[in-house]
Amino acid sequence: LGAKAFADRLCAAVRAKRTPVMVGLDPRFEHLPDGLRDGLDPSDLAGVAAAYERFGREILDVAADLTPAVKFQAAFFEAAGPEGMLALAALMRHARSQGLLVVLDGKRNDIGSTAEAYARAYLGGESAAWPSDATTVNPFLGRETLDPFLAHALQSGGGFFVLVRTSNPGSKDLQEAACADGDVSDRIATWVETASAAHAGKCGYGPVGAVVGATHPSQIRRFRERMPHAVLLLPGYGAQGGAAADVRDAFDGEGLGAVVNNSRGVLCAHQRPEYAGLPWRDAARGAVEEMIRDLAEHTPAGNLRT
Amino acid sequence: LGAKAFADRLCAAVRAKRTPVMVGLDPRFEHLPDGLRDGLDPSDLAGVAAAYERFGREILDVAADLTPAVKFQAAFFEAAGPEGMLALAALMRHARSQGLLVVLDGKRNDIGSTAEAYARAYLGGESAAWPSDATTVNPFLGRETLDPFLAHALQSGGGFFVLVRTSNPGSKDLQEAACADGDVSDRIATWVETASAAHAGKCGYGPVGAVVGATHPSQIRRFRERMPHAVLLLPGYGAQGGAAADVRDAFDGEGLGAVVNNSRGVLCAHQRPEYAGLPWRDAARGAVEEMIRDLAEHTPAGNLRT
Repeated sequence: LGAKAFADRLCAAVRAKRTPVMVGLDPRFEHLPDGLRDGLDPSDLAGVAAAYERFGREILDVAADLTPAVKFQAAFFEAAGPEGMLALAALMRHARSQGLLVVLDGKRNDIGSTAEAYARAYLGGESAAWPSDATTVNPFLGRETLDPFLAHALQSGGGFFVLVRTSNPGSKDLQEAACADGDVSDRIATWVETASAAHAGKCGYGPVGAVVGATHPSQIRRFRERMPHAVLLLPGYGAQGGAAADVRDAFDGEGLGAVVNNSRGVLCAHQRPEYAGLPWRDAARGAVEEMIRDLAEHTPAGNLRT
Repeated sequence: LGAKAFADRLCAAVRAKRTPVMVGLDPRFEHLPDGLRDGLDPSDLAGVAAAYERFGREILDVAADLTPAVKFQAAFFEAAGPEGMLALAALMRHARSQGLLVVLDGKRNDIGSTAEAYARAYLGGESAAWPSDATTVNPFLGRETLDPFLAHALQSGGGFFVLVRTSNPGSKDLQEAACADGDVSDRIATWVETASAAHAGKCGYGPVGAVVGATHPSQIRRFRERMPHAVLLLPGYGAQGGAAADVRDAFDGEGLGAVVNNSRGVLCAHQRPEYAGLPWRDAARGAVEEMIRDLAEHTPAGNLRT
């Protein structure tokens, strides 16, 4: 790994695993399997953090067999307090040791030297506080606030995904406001494409990616065309209603250029009727395998070759 | 404290200290006083976190004598890794024990149950993972993403400040995009005012405040008028160029309705020529006292009565 460009590493990992599936680690107390939740008080934050870590290690081992990358949702670890953050760091290290690319989904940003501190925290490379390969960034504070993330990404061989169009219904509230050059999402897409094209790797994609919800199929083609050098990170498959056919246009002909995240569909597989009676690890594995097949059948991910 | 409404507690604290000055705890390695930085390697994150905690405790003791509230900048603690987060939690508890209101400035947000996890983390009350009285929230993902913060604020007696117009030059990039009802900042201001007016306390202000940069004096009056029930949190005084006269219009006639943050001016006071030769604690105290005088002279904060 090391300083090789993030997008090239991601493309190589997607080819190696022959799937763009990203498993999302968003642990919620109420979704923990019975064996991990039994007798645990949700207000016992140290106990919750320990349960998240045990649960996370097993999910990571499933993901490492099958998928190129995992995405950690910072919020759930933060909600377990400082012990939750210790568990997060330990899980990130475990994921790296298993050969997974690590995306830290914190949607952070701020201004000036504060944005720089977030960039250093989450794109500081292997020896950093949080050993992520890429992170998610909120662009609300303006274009200049992306600069520190780009600088750190180029230095460490990391990447970052800027929120362009989020998967929730309310995404339209501000993201469709009008700018001179389209709407707010279009303007952000231009920032992403400009920065990523300037630093594109051998795979044709650069270090700046874009979050585009899988729940907006009609918009995915538009954003794919506006950002030909940006990897798209698509949340919203499964629990939020996005289907494989909805994300088809996010990929190039080889099946590269996009990763599709699934959190609840995997983490809660043991609560889904179709996996009833299976041990939860097997249910999680079954859900990942099902998603891999679904994307291979309905998107250009079926063209992936190692 | 307890479940009494945040805005009422803040107004009471501002009256008691007779100033709307908020000290910002944004520790940067390069700004640590010599005695705390000597021999410390910036890549020794546990050492950096310990230095931030020692520094922070002394600053909090200065603040507790003079000011109603402190604001912790999460980014710098996160950049020190999990140990940094442990230091943050310890400092937040220390601030509360000194009678200070605690604002956690993390500019967090996400969608659905993820936003709920952030709200629980930072507005969960005294027994929560992070014992803050209020937090800052990024509204980019839409109005619905503010709902979990409001629900938790009402339950715990906390508050939150939504980014309406940030203090940096690039704030115009997206925050001035056009909506049917004004620009993006106007739309967010409407959300803030509606929610805060519906839950206004005895002081006339509600649990939802707004971040408006002190660097935009011409806009402060506009936002004050649009959000008569919202406390304004004004960053940008001092190091970013905002002056006391610039924030005058943020206050009501009693000197309530706004708090003005100062981070670098206080934390780096020992590096300012006017405090040369003073021990750094005395320099920090001098900088806080100077800002209190400045606001009392040039804004309605001079009218504050206990």
